Amino acid sequence: MIIILKENPDKKQLENLTDWLKTMGLDIHYSQGTSTTIMGLIGDTSVVDTDLINALDIVENVKRITEPYKNANRKFHPFDTVVEVPLPDGGSVKIGGGNFQIIAGPCSVESEDQVCTIAMEVKEAGAGLCRGGAFKPRTSPYAFQGMREQGINLLLEAKKRSGLPVVTEVMDISHLPFFENVDVIQVGARNMQNFELLKELGHIGKPVLLKRGLSSTLRELLMSAEYVMAGGNRNVILCERGIRTFETATRNTLDLSAIPLLKEKTHLPVIVDPSHATGSAALVLPMSMAATAAGADGLMIEVHNDPEHALCDGAQSITPATFRDLVKSVKSIQPLAYKGGKP
Amino acid sequence: MIIILKENPDKKQLENLTDWLKTMGLDIHYSQGTSTTIMGLIGDTSVVDTDLINALDIVENVKRITEPYKNANRKFHPFDTVVEVPLPDGGSVKIGGGNFQIIAGPCSVESEDQVCTIAMEVKEAGAGLCRGGAFKPRTSPYAFQGMREQGINLLLEAKKRSGLPVVTEVMDISHLPFFENVDVIQVGARNMQNFELLKELGHIGKPVLLKRGLSSTLRELLMSAEYVMAGGNRNVILCERGIRTFETATRNTLDLSAIPLLKEKTHLPVIVDPSHATGSAALVLPMSMAATAAGADGLMIEVHNDPEHALCDGAQSITPATFRDLVKSVKSIQPLAYKGGKP
Amino acid sequence: MIIILKENPDKKQLENLTDWLKTMGLDIHYSQGTSTTIMGLIGDTSVVDTDLINALDIVENVKRITEPYKNANRKFHPFDTVVEVPLPDGGSVKIGGGNFQIIAGPCSVESEDQVCTIAMEVKEAGAGLCRGGAFKPRTSPYAFQGMREQGINLLLEAKKRSGLPVVTEVMDISHLPFFENVDVIQVGARNMQNFELLKELGHIGKPVLLKRGLSSTLRELLMSAEYVMAGGNRNVILCERGIRTFETATRNTLDLSAIPLLKEKTHLPVIVDPSHATGSAALVLPMSMAATAAGADGLMIEVHNDPEHALCDGAQSITPATFRDLVKSVKSIQPLAYKGGKP
Amino acid sequence: MIIILKENPDKKQLENLTDWLKTMGLDIHYSQGTSTTIMGLIGDTSVVDTDLINALDIVENVKRITEPYKNANRKFHPFDTVVEVPLPDGGSVKIGGGNFQIIAGPCSVESEDQVCTIAMEVKEAGAGLCRGGAFKPRTSPYAFQGMREQGINLLLEAKKRSGLPVVTEVMDISHLPFFENVDVIQVGARNMQNFELLKELGHIGKPVLLKRGLSSTLRELLMSAEYVMAGGNRNVILCERGIRTFETATRNTLDLSAIPLLKEKTHLPVIVDPSHATGSAALVLPMSMAATAAGADGLMIEVHNDPEHALCDGAQSITPATFRDLVKSVKSIQPLAYKGGKP
Repeated sequence: MIIILKENPDKKQLENLTDWLKTMGLDIHYSQGTSTTIMGLIGDTSVVDTDLINALDIVENVKRITEPYKNANRKFHPFDTVVEVPLPDGGSVKIGGGNFQIIAGPCSVESEDQVCTIAMEVKEAGAGLCRGGAFKPRTSPYAFQGMREQGINLLLEAKKRSGLPVVTEVMDISHLPFFENVDVIQVGARNMQNFELLKELGHIGKPVLLKRGLSSTLRELLMSAEYVMAGGNRNVILCERGIRTFETATRNTLDLSAIPLLKEKTHLPVIVDPSHATGSAALVLPMSMAATAAGADGLMIEVHNDPEHALCDGAQSITPATFRDLVKSVKSIQPLAYKGGKP
Repeated sequence: MIIILKENPDKKQLENLTDWLKTMGLDIHYSQGTSTTIMGLIGDTSVVDTDLINALDIVENVKRITEPYKNANRKFHPFDTVVEVPLPDGGSVKIGGGNFQIIAGPCSVESEDQVCTIAMEVKEAGAGLCRGGAFKPRTSPYAFQGMREQGINLLLEAKKRSGLPVVTEVMDISHLPFFENVDVIQVGARNMQNFELLKELGHIGKPVLLKRGLSSTLRELLMSAEYVMAGGNRNVILCERGIRTFETATRNTLDLSAIPLLKEKTHLPVIVDPSHATGSAALVLPMSMAATAAGADGLMIEVHNDPEHALCDGAQSITPATFRDLVKSVKSIQPLAYKGGKP
Repeated sequence: MIIILKENPDKKQLENLTDWLKTMGLDIHYSQGTSTTIMGLIGDTSVVDTDLINALDIVENVKRITEPYKNANRKFHPFDTVVEVPLPDGGSVKIGGGNFQIIAGPCSVESEDQVCTIAMEVKEAGAGLCRGGAFKPRTSPYAFQGMREQGINLLLEAKKRSGLPVVTEVMDISHLPFFENVDVIQVGARNMQNFELLKELGHIGKPVLLKRGLSSTLRELLMSAEYVMAGGNRNVILCERGIRTFETATRNTLDLSAIPLLKEKTHLPVIVDPSHATGSAALVLPMSMAATAAGADGLMIEVHNDPEHALCDGAQSITPATFRDLVKSVKSIQPLAYKGGKP
Repeated sequence: MIIILKENPDKKQLENLTDWLKTMGLDIHYSQGTSTTIMGLIGDTSVVDTDLINALDIVENVKRITEPYKNANRKFHPFDTVVEVPLPDGGSVKIGGGNFQIIAGPCSVESEDQVCTIAMEVKEAGAGLCRGGAFKPRTSPYAFQGMREQGINLLLEAKKRSGLPVVTEVMDISHLPFFENVDVIQVGARNMQNFELLKELGHIGKPVLLKRGLSSTLRELLMSAEYVMAGGNRNVILCERGIRTFETATRNTLDLSAIPLLKEKTHLPVIVDPSHATGSAALVLPMSMAATAAGADGLMIEVHNDPEHALCDGAQSITPATFRDLVKSVKSIQPLAYKGGKP
């Protein structure tokens, strides 16, 4: 970490700063220019709060040379993390480290028939996990808030029938007891910086699927993963799902450069959700193919079953038939995909 | 609400849609162009989920004519809400409807001496409420997470000594018991769409200060206020605190047009936090003056006390002396400020 | 086009509006709700200025049902445009309609040796056109502004030696005489809305490569293409090159969903420039692969030759060796790429 | 300027870099940490291209300590620039350095009667200059492109009758001859980085009003001002006019923190255009008041004359009556406005 001091810094304040840095066990290396003094901090700077230092009157600028995340950092953990989701038969579904998985299912769990039918269909088509929303984050208090605990029970029924492990979103610490038999717990974009929830998930022995916030940088996403990992849970799957920009032709802008960038910075698996990112069924297939080519470890796809009668199927959901085609296209590209960014 | 259908919509699907809309008690008015059919929905459309309708294959576009928020809507509540924060002497501090308030205090509560000294100083300078962070949302799990419950106790001590009501941020439902004697509960930008927390705050008889999310639209902010109000708590104060843009010279971009726009759409008080928005002490004064001129109902300002020794004072905090000048400048502008957008 | 009127519109103003619309040859279809009147305009609404109508006191909202671009619109021109760049031998290099091309070359033309060497190398590796900057748009007036007319001469020398047609950027109408022997004229992101330049290029019989502006919507990009096409030049190639967002890990955010979206809206070829978008050599390969999988008609790649001595090679340029690998990877994916969005 | 090298940099490349920096007359100061080497450059670094250096394989990061603009930099020119627009009577209209000016007039020049009437009315209300669009940048080639040279003649007629100096936008170098009698030449947001045009304006003895681009940083705005100033023309007025964000309730997001920030960095006058920024007549007054309070040197306001008949008045234009009220409100606030950021 480098601290660039302002010209003629107040001596008392500089002394305070120096003392404080030394109490954190850091060595300080000075470099004196004609008008600028640069302090180089040597040691474990991940505990140093750059905002605090930046705040000081005597400081012009602070710059990290090393990243503030450790558990998530590929530098310290060069090999790909493989997240394993246990199966009843003793086997497991693996994500990361060359294991590509497609997670598919309905936006919202609506009925036993709906979720079980879709689970079976996506399994047959090649999905490795089933997703379905039980607790739904909705912008309006008057919109359908999901079937909640009952929705989780229906999802678990779909798991039993299809054999697919299930992924569903948690919205509050107090709901965690309902997630006991859920296989992968999803943290949605709006909760990516719900730090208390992240801490709690650090103490749970289940994989966490962490979605990027709507206006979160990749570094912030990694810091949120670090919150979970710092608690002891190393099974974190990162998910790119679009960011907010001025463009209105798509719901969000899918940032696929996040895939190779994240995989360079971290050993955690990176998957992509083209359904929520684009908000358009027509874009799910091309963006799934692009994400795969860029080296994603998996995809998360919304699939609905009965377009004739279902009113709630999102503009972003595709039919099981389209999903089958998607799996084929994606699997044909996957062997040719980008493999770089990993040692 | 207007639904624009695609050319030659599938009859069965159109029938499904029509039936479903009728079950919600809506009248449907058709308008047939050469190639386009437009459905006008008449009745209470706030319960209708536009995303769901937009999702249908037969629908080209959906457009709301009326806003989906009701409790927060000025159309239905033309007069300004005045949020009253009770005082021990039976009086109250009022915000909104012509009552301008400045909330001031340290970024983080650090010690009894610190928070009490600042509380006294900002009171003398003219602040109406004292703020101080006890539970701190920090990007890094390794950064100082606030003094938490102990911090709230120190803040309550500052309240006792200064006589100022206190505002502090809640980060999780499970912490609410600690907030029993807090006067105004703040929901931070990162929790603006923590819907479970908002619902819970709807059942609490305390004013809620709701900050705009980093990438939230004004409509989303109003929908989050609606979450609180739908639960019965009508004492919501909205706070503009900057949004994320590509500009890097400020931490965020303070969106002051939010003030007159929000005041046109809603009867709720609107305040501005220039400290967090800009991240720069030098910008706090001019942006406070600008926000006041644009018709804000109040300001939220970070003030620290002892720049010589305090390491944690943010780059965005001003000294008590600067704060006194700020109060004077702001109070000279306030009588001349924009009063429009209200009936 | 639909015009939604405010409640109780002023009669005189409504009359003015109606008269004006009729003089443009439009039929008006009224639809009267309880409180809202909707006017449906039937006829050629591409000449109607929605901003002007939106401006009227009596108007609540205006919505286009059909897009304002005609020449660029796939609805009216369902088949893919194939842009042909003539070759000296009477043949041509084709882009679009299934013809995939890679344009490669140095960021700036620096010397005859440099540009000719690279042109030869990229040709051998499989590039179909050679690019090189002669007129360089630089943020700072003190930065190297390119070799200008001399740079174009060197590029034409590279064309002669390699046989590759050349692409280079024009920055001002007055420079066009220098472009007489250039094969494809590039309009850079900063000039995407230099409307006078676009009009001029409409009268020139050469393909135009039009880059998306840094904060331009896809509709605006298509409207800029329409400027060129309205003048009679139908040979426009669109280029996605990243947009500005809050993310700082990449220079810009490459918006790959632009590929299938544009190809749905227009018949023009769509290529992608991952070099400028990401600003990082390490991301050029994975983003090239992703763009190809998403259905791009080509790529534009910066290649430099001698990393040992060249100081000016951008962080975003790759070596000829890496370029050869890129061509191989891209060509293996291309046959499997997304083909949808076209009739 | 500081260059942070990667670990174990290639010796040959480091030598090349060092030689090159020395040829530019810079002294280099090394600071060796355990794993990082930092090079501090001493001398005139405004000629150094950070992008080029950042591009080198051996470089981790480059950071400027001093800004790359010189003529526009307040450090080297501590006193406010006062831009003087000459009047026929030998006097002048002054902007900057405590001189506050309001520029007002119609969006587009439409007829002699229209522009002359408005010019007279805004003059009487207190405007110091008259604006009016003759060459109009329009997104669509089918929209009204302005009256062009004829529009300028009408504007000059309005100047003669009202006595107000006039401001109008130039879109291309080739149109400059028509601007001979225009008093202030405006460069619009879309041309802020039309570098050839900026260079040309550097050689003209007229004030230039430079609008911030829709997605331009403040540093880029200053670099564009530097383009004009480097040519010898020091009379540049900067104009904040809103930036593109995800918010859709306003056309753009007006960034008022730009005022104090720019005035800290530069000695040039800074004005604000709330009409284009917000796109809403209702927001022009409050945002004018806020801009004034924040220390703007002036405002640019769209005023139309006859709302009954004029179809083309923008949603963002206010009537002369509202303009008179605006001038009163703004002039009451102006004496109390922020004066800081200047020595």
